[in-house]
Amino acid sequence: MAQQHPDVQHPAGAAPALTAYLRAQATDFLRAQTGSAGGGPAQGGDSAPALRRAARRIGATLHTFHAAFDPAWSAGLRRELAWFSGALAQERLHAATLRRLQAALQEPPGDLGAARAAALLERRLTLARGRAHSAVLEALGSARFHALADAVALLGGEVPLRGDAAACAVLREQAGTAEVRLADAVAALPAGPGPDADPATDPDPGPYGDALPYGDAGPCQGRPGDGDGDPAWHQVRLLLRLHRYAVEALGGPVPPRLVAAARALDRHRDAAEAASVAAAAARTPRIAPATAYALGNLHAHQRHEVLAARHAFHRTWQSLPRPRNTVTVP
Amino acid sequence: MAQQHPDVQHPAGAAPALTAYLRAQATDFLRAQTGSAGGGPAQGGDSAPALRRAARRIGATLHTFHAAFDPAWSAGLRRELAWFSGALAQERLHAATLRRLQAALQEPPGDLGAARAAALLERRLTLARGRAHSAVLEALGSARFHALADAVALLGGEVPLRGDAAACAVLREQAGTAEVRLADAVAALPAGPGPDADPATDPDPGPYGDALPYGDAGPCQGRPGDGDGDPAWHQVRLLLRLHRYAVEALGGPVPPRLVAAARALDRHRDAAEAASVAAAAARTPRIAPATAYALGNLHAHQRHEVLAARHAFHRTWQSLPRPRNTVTVP
Repeated sequence: MAQQHPDVQHPAGAAPALTAYLRAQATDFLRAQTGSAGGGPAQGGDSAPALRRAARRIGATLHTFHAAFDPAWSAGLRRELAWFSGALAQERLHAATLRRLQAALQEPPGDLGAARAAALLERRLTLARGRAHSAVLEALGSARFHALADAVALLGGEVPLRGDAAACAVLREQAGTAEVRLADAVAALPAGPGPDADPATDPDPGPYGDALPYGDAGPCQGRPGDGDGDPAWHQVRLLLRLHRYAVEALGGPVPPRLVAAARALDRHRDAAEAASVAAAAARTPRIAPATAYALGNLHAHQRHEVLAARHAFHRTWQSLPRPRNTVTVP
Repeated sequence: MAQQHPDVQHPAGAAPALTAYLRAQATDFLRAQTGSAGGGPAQGGDSAPALRRAARRIGATLHTFHAAFDPAWSAGLRRELAWFSGALAQERLHAATLRRLQAALQEPPGDLGAARAAALLERRLTLARGRAHSAVLEALGSARFHALADAVALLGGEVPLRGDAAACAVLREQAGTAEVRLADAVAALPAGPGPDADPATDPDPGPYGDALPYGDAGPCQGRPGDGDGDPAWHQVRLLLRLHRYAVEALGGPVPPRLVAAARALDRHRDAAEAASVAAAAARTPRIAPATAYALGNLHAHQRHEVLAARHAFHRTWQSLPRPRNTVTVP
């Protein structure tokens, strides 16, 4: 994959922010890869978050500003970064899910079977995390990873910007496109709570406003289900990440509310994952009814966490300036 | 109990509203008791709501304006009204719980065992409702009920106000006391969402604001538990009812937001009951794990409904004028 772009130019004055950003991310990646003070990921050190962070940002930047790079080269590098980030993300997700479900079951006020449910989930998730960890170690030791690291090392020295794409206006347009794609995806989500709901005219829209189906139709009609609506939200999470990294890449300040919105979507994904893990665990053959009861409870709680995260996202998003068809990236 | 008050007076000019109110409620009670068009409660007619409604209002009025009546007489009548309303309320609660849980299980998106859980709950609640219905029929046929109806009939003719208590100022003071007791009880509840939460400084207070424990501390710490906090809320519900009926009794307009707040507390009680019924059903011996899972799910959903109702109450309550130590009843 480490095919070098044929039309490399120094970014003399053009998009120096983008170049500096990619270089900095590449440097972070390499530093995390070799491991600071000998505690690299292969030795069980905690450099995985730094590796994941840098790999995600490099891949996102190549994606958003694709016109600035040779298509074949950037597609190849992105594919390899996606492969490697995917392996790291899998391990992180299992660990986060285990933490989340353990926390949820730690204080079980009267729940039947909570301890057995916790033990069951711990067994399942520890196993899954172990497998994911092995996959990461295997990836780190592979020739494929070393080729990826070589390609990132080249990026750390010299960013292969195409000459015709180095104009600031083009880069800003591409960042603007990422922002508009995000806004469109958010607009396609179910409506959030209105900004000026009035308890007099609308005495009980439920805790999540219009986003949630607690209405007069019944207490649980259309209640927090089992993830039918999740994919659209996961997509918004990815688009928000692309937008955020595009702002970073062009040197713009990332609004704290954007970070808060991203955190809400991370929580959304984690809770959705935890809910489906709880549901899957309940299908274990021969579990005790009390264990199944606790898992059912847990599943519902996590689905409510999903809805709470959606509410938090809408709330934060509404306080952000609307980018629609305007390029607000500096 | 139908001991007549010894100091009966015509309410010449004093508290005519209170007198008219009690008379109207007594008339409603008697009309419902004899049954309109031969379909009384003993024949399975639907006059139970009207009986309950009138009995509750008469009892509450005697309670709030206790200084206006002979203590022994009003205590006796209140005790009998409470006995009878209690029997009616029990039947209504079982019916409402069954409806609520059936609705919740009607659209089970992927839940395991929802149909079996629904069947189990229906069996249990139908049985309980049948017992409660028998108790109501038995009460309606009893000498005790006929004595109660006689006492209410007397009230419909002549309201036994004490002469020294008939002054409007005294009645208003007593209504004010009911209002202050309610405000104190609400103030003692866990805090509701702040009126001006700012998503920037407080990016994620959770869907219920401060009233709910979705915080940075963890997704499920202090999550909707199993009713430890319910009694304080049930108490507020009763105090709100007393306040509302006191406003009605003195002829004041009942603010729609007060009615909305009362509805939220009714929903709170119904959801709390439904949650505990689901938890109790999960303790049925030898149920299938899938059934237990569905009941756990249901329990958690209902506990979230409890929290949603608390949120709705706080939201409505905050929009009501604060009565603290002032008598706003006309």
